[in-house]
Amino acid sequence: MVIIMKPGASGAEIAGVIARIEAHQLTPHPIYGEERTVIAVVGNDRPVDRTTFETLAGVDFIQAILKPYKLASREFRKDDSAVTLIERNGKAVTVGGNGHVTLIAGPCACESREQVLETALMVKEAGAQGFRGGAFKPRTSPYSFQGHGEKALQWMAEAREVTGLAIVTEVMSPEQVPMVAEYANVMQIGARNMQNFALLNAVGMSMKPVLLKRGMSATMEELLMAAEYILSHGNYNVMLCERGIRTFEQYTRNTTDINAIPALKALSHLPVVLDPSHATGKSEYVIAIARAGIAAGADGLIVEVHPEPSKAMSDGAQTLTPKAFESMVRQCKRIAAAMDKEI
Amino acid sequence: MVIIMKPGASGAEIAGVIARIEAHQLTPHPIYGEERTVIAVVGNDRPVDRTTFETLAGVDFIQAILKPYKLASREFRKDDSAVTLIERNGKAVTVGGNGHVTLIAGPCACESREQVLETALMVKEAGAQGFRGGAFKPRTSPYSFQGHGEKALQWMAEAREVTGLAIVTEVMSPEQVPMVAEYANVMQIGARNMQNFALLNAVGMSMKPVLLKRGMSATMEELLMAAEYILSHGNYNVMLCERGIRTFEQYTRNTTDINAIPALKALSHLPVVLDPSHATGKSEYVIAIARAGIAAGADGLIVEVHPEPSKAMSDGAQTLTPKAFESMVRQCKRIAAAMDKEI
Amino acid sequence: MVIIMKPGASGAEIAGVIARIEAHQLTPHPIYGEERTVIAVVGNDRPVDRTTFETLAGVDFIQAILKPYKLASREFRKDDSAVTLIERNGKAVTVGGNGHVTLIAGPCACESREQVLETALMVKEAGAQGFRGGAFKPRTSPYSFQGHGEKALQWMAEAREVTGLAIVTEVMSPEQVPMVAEYANVMQIGARNMQNFALLNAVGMSMKPVLLKRGMSATMEELLMAAEYILSHGNYNVMLCERGIRTFEQYTRNTTDINAIPALKALSHLPVVLDPSHATGKSEYVIAIARAGIAAGADGLIVEVHPEPSKAMSDGAQTLTPKAFESMVRQCKRIAAAMDKEI
Amino acid sequence: MVIIMKPGASGAEIAGVIARIEAHQLTPHPIYGEERTVIAVVGNDRPVDRTTFETLAGVDFIQAILKPYKLASREFRKDDSAVTLIERNGKAVTVGGNGHVTLIAGPCACESREQVLETALMVKEAGAQGFRGGAFKPRTSPYSFQGHGEKALQWMAEAREVTGLAIVTEVMSPEQVPMVAEYANVMQIGARNMQNFALLNAVGMSMKPVLLKRGMSATMEELLMAAEYILSHGNYNVMLCERGIRTFEQYTRNTTDINAIPALKALSHLPVVLDPSHATGKSEYVIAIARAGIAAGADGLIVEVHPEPSKAMSDGAQTLTPKAFESMVRQCKRIAAAMDKEI
Repeated sequence: MVIIMKPGASGAEIAGVIARIEAHQLTPHPIYGEERTVIAVVGNDRPVDRTTFETLAGVDFIQAILKPYKLASREFRKDDSAVTLIERNGKAVTVGGNGHVTLIAGPCACESREQVLETALMVKEAGAQGFRGGAFKPRTSPYSFQGHGEKALQWMAEAREVTGLAIVTEVMSPEQVPMVAEYANVMQIGARNMQNFALLNAVGMSMKPVLLKRGMSATMEELLMAAEYILSHGNYNVMLCERGIRTFEQYTRNTTDINAIPALKALSHLPVVLDPSHATGKSEYVIAIARAGIAAGADGLIVEVHPEPSKAMSDGAQTLTPKAFESMVRQCKRIAAAMDKEI
Repeated sequence: MVIIMKPGASGAEIAGVIARIEAHQLTPHPIYGEERTVIAVVGNDRPVDRTTFETLAGVDFIQAILKPYKLASREFRKDDSAVTLIERNGKAVTVGGNGHVTLIAGPCACESREQVLETALMVKEAGAQGFRGGAFKPRTSPYSFQGHGEKALQWMAEAREVTGLAIVTEVMSPEQVPMVAEYANVMQIGARNMQNFALLNAVGMSMKPVLLKRGMSATMEELLMAAEYILSHGNYNVMLCERGIRTFEQYTRNTTDINAIPALKALSHLPVVLDPSHATGKSEYVIAIARAGIAAGADGLIVEVHPEPSKAMSDGAQTLTPKAFESMVRQCKRIAAAMDKEI
Repeated sequence: MVIIMKPGASGAEIAGVIARIEAHQLTPHPIYGEERTVIAVVGNDRPVDRTTFETLAGVDFIQAILKPYKLASREFRKDDSAVTLIERNGKAVTVGGNGHVTLIAGPCACESREQVLETALMVKEAGAQGFRGGAFKPRTSPYSFQGHGEKALQWMAEAREVTGLAIVTEVMSPEQVPMVAEYANVMQIGARNMQNFALLNAVGMSMKPVLLKRGMSATMEELLMAAEYILSHGNYNVMLCERGIRTFEQYTRNTTDINAIPALKALSHLPVVLDPSHATGKSEYVIAIARAGIAAGADGLIVEVHPEPSKAMSDGAQTLTPKAFESMVRQCKRIAAAMDKEI
Repeated sequence: MVIIMKPGASGAEIAGVIARIEAHQLTPHPIYGEERTVIAVVGNDRPVDRTTFETLAGVDFIQAILKPYKLASREFRKDDSAVTLIERNGKAVTVGGNGHVTLIAGPCACESREQVLETALMVKEAGAQGFRGGAFKPRTSPYSFQGHGEKALQWMAEAREVTGLAIVTEVMSPEQVPMVAEYANVMQIGARNMQNFALLNAVGMSMKPVLLKRGMSATMEELLMAAEYILSHGNYNVMLCERGIRTFEQYTRNTTDINAIPALKALSHLPVVLDPSHATGKSEYVIAIARAGIAAGADGLIVEVHPEPSKAMSDGAQTLTPKAFESMVRQCKRIAAAMDKEI
């Protein structure tokens, strides 16, 4: 870190800061400017609560230098990581790592065995490699439909049998991890749980692939720190998912942070997936944003598809019909090809 | 809800929407304007996923009319609710409900038995009615200090014996609820867990008082819906806590949403507490914002105090010294008196 | 508009609102629900200050129904508008309206005649149709370089002679409009001036093409209303420019609102241009976002290019080298082709 | 500034940065850490575009050390500045500088001579020292009422004759400055024009007091830089006005950044005024936020008052009745007294 002293900080104040730095076994390097003194601190200051330095007399503010995440960083691993969703006919279906874009599609919520199987067949046919469906639903209202739970997990497992699609589904609490891990190929951490650290620890210990959604007001650094929680338990099968952030603009449900796609790819080796459904909230813009995501470098897309969106139990407004999804795949294939990738 | 059709929506499209409304046992009232048709829907549409109507042909957008929360609303209960923190000498120490402001103070994290007891005595002496301290700490980094767990809960229980202060501490996952409920008077739900629905359900079933912190990008309505989760299990001992929201302004750690204090008091009967420490992130502004909170109508304050903030293991920059806390209490008493309240 | 009454609003309150509606020569349609009464208002309520209805007794809130802009709306003109930047060899160089993407490139500020001519030749060679350069610079600090003014306009006019590129440059106040209009092909309204209504009126009266940048915290609706100011004077040569919005995420300078591209194209007939330089603030992400913009449907790009970005007088960090710009054009051509467009 | 090199930056890259620092006549101080090298730069780097250093090979990011504003800073002037609004009976009515709070009140727009005189008398009677009223109105829509212009200025001048109140009114473009300066005591720069630099320069040259409203997405630093524009012309009569910022929370029109009050007072010597009307957008919360502003340390308030808000031509929803304003003054006097100030 670098400690920036207030204009006019006294010699005693500077000495006090230096003493405190040394008490942490770190090395202070004061630089005396005309208007201000700054004190650079050499050594690994990650374990120190840097904000406490702001309370010392004469200190104005602190600038962190070291990135707080290590295992998630591009410095830790130069090459792109790939996460295997499922093995199919002896071949791994992966996200990240080479010239392809992976598609995961399905309904917001699993509503019935028929709906699950029908949608899985449709999205498989259209070109998806993974199936998403909600068994446990985080709902803003306690009065809204909360998901069919284990039954829904069973329907999805059956859909995997039939279609070979990898199953991606949300896990909402540490207790659910064993059950969800038994049925699903990928455990999704929802945006609202991105900093549910008990849950991050639990999926970190499970070794199952994890799709980690960015919190709606989480910075990229916080997203990478949440990934670090999972990685620090030895589970390296983590995919980052941009799903739109909350801003003042409310014509769309969220604001797709398209910058995050190249930025996360630069800062981290982990695969990056875009969810254009939540990122826009309006089905009429999903396809354009799906194309944009691939053009920006996303390794995969996760998209809401329902046989009849207007009858969906949740998220209808942002859900594609199977026909629209087919059109999306066709368009995305062309963009992927222009990026020298394939879907 | 009111359904706003697109300009030029056809008769068939309007008929389609009307049919769908009737399928939900609701009553449509179409109004034909020159530029647009709008269809008002009469009946309780809360259980319906309104967004699905946006997917019907010819629909532009939906405006909800009914508030999604009931038990938390001012309509449900006209009078201010009071939550009892602790009984002391046969008298209830409460937050909300009448002419007083309640102060809760203590360190971000419980660091040692001595620190807990020393701080509790100091804040008691200065005028606090509750003691806050972290046993389980939600930390952005997996490498940061995560709290002393049950040991810290024991230290706080001992501090309660000595001082009579009510103990407020964070619970981070459903499994921790029984243990925390055993030691603490009030369970705090942290900002990052405001929409951890499994946790909300767990504290809803415990009947212990809950201090529910607003998520850093949660709207007031979402905060009230999170409270509704707890209330819907029959636990009415819920306090709402404004702790600053995340905005583009980053000179301060968060932006105190002072508007939320009168607004939450108008929308809900639940007590409203302000946390000026997190809401500013800088100890030099905590006292001014504490005063402002009382002037805006807050029922209580929760403030970080540490015997030596520059040596705190976390949140040092926003933590008051015991001496500054004393000064805060003196100033706040005068503002409270100007509001015909006492501390 | 629709007026939503509070729960329990009295008959007298409802009558009061109805009377006020009728006083504006509008027609009230009250609908009496179980919990609430809503009053739909039929007629053109655009000239009315709707917020005043919120002050009437018993009113909870107002929902606008009619879009506040007319000339800028897709309803006003079904087909895409095209704006002609310049005629070259008897052929119009346009933005919008058909299967092409238009590139405008050049330095943040015009620093010297040589720099202007050199950059213009380079970007022309790489494939640009327009040249951007600042003569009058809006700078956060009064102590920063403020631009070379008319001299810079002359350099750009000379560059047009040499290259045939259309000249795009910012105009900062009504008095500057005649001078800028004399030299430039397109007047740019900067983000900070998007709601400088005196300036919008002045360019509205000039009939020169206008590139209107979205304010950094302007909603899409406000951007369209700013366009409406210009259009309402009869100047239909308006291009909308997304240049990133201000959010809590500050790793990038701004957050590219990529959703705004398909959304503005749906809401309006006006051409939409993306500025990936300001929208990211970091040159290493500009190309990815340029590709994403085209994939999302942008009609053009405006990009900062400087012969030696590290010596630029402003905005160096987000500026491409000529070589990087060439690479950008190559990549963008492939994405455009995948969209059945050409550059 | 401090330049933070990327992990693994080469010796040649570090040498390149050092050479560039020296080319600006500044002194580099490299500090070699285990993971990173940082280079502190000694000397006044304000005139340098720091972002250009980000383009040099091996550089990760730049941290500014020196505040970009000087004349507006607390370091420039230790004591609070006071701005004189008007002389009355040989006594100056001031904002800032000592133990009082100044109230400015009046309608959003001047609608008629009668409305202006009536409101001025009422707010004077209730305790105001200044009168606000719009002659030129910045309106989002070109179809909305734009103000009565010079006529309205004449009505306000007449109201000053009658009441002795100082007149505060918005100026929207450089050409209007002479006319507005002739009639008004204080020229207001609206939020949308906070970075209209041509206008800032014009009022800077006029020497009339200026009320500078914070832009709705302007940081405090940007507000202080806008003030610096005015101060740099020698006009030191500048008041800063917090009027709410734009955030994701849209139940209220804006989010009052109450933190900005103590923060601006700490960073700058200029007086700080709060506008609780725009900061909330709802008249029912104006009084609570007015009280909070005083408790937070504001030097003054500017409030919208109209004889009949429901008939106001603009901003009705956030406007107080004269009776509510009287109540506000009574309550604010008590809070001010608790702060050892008077109104």
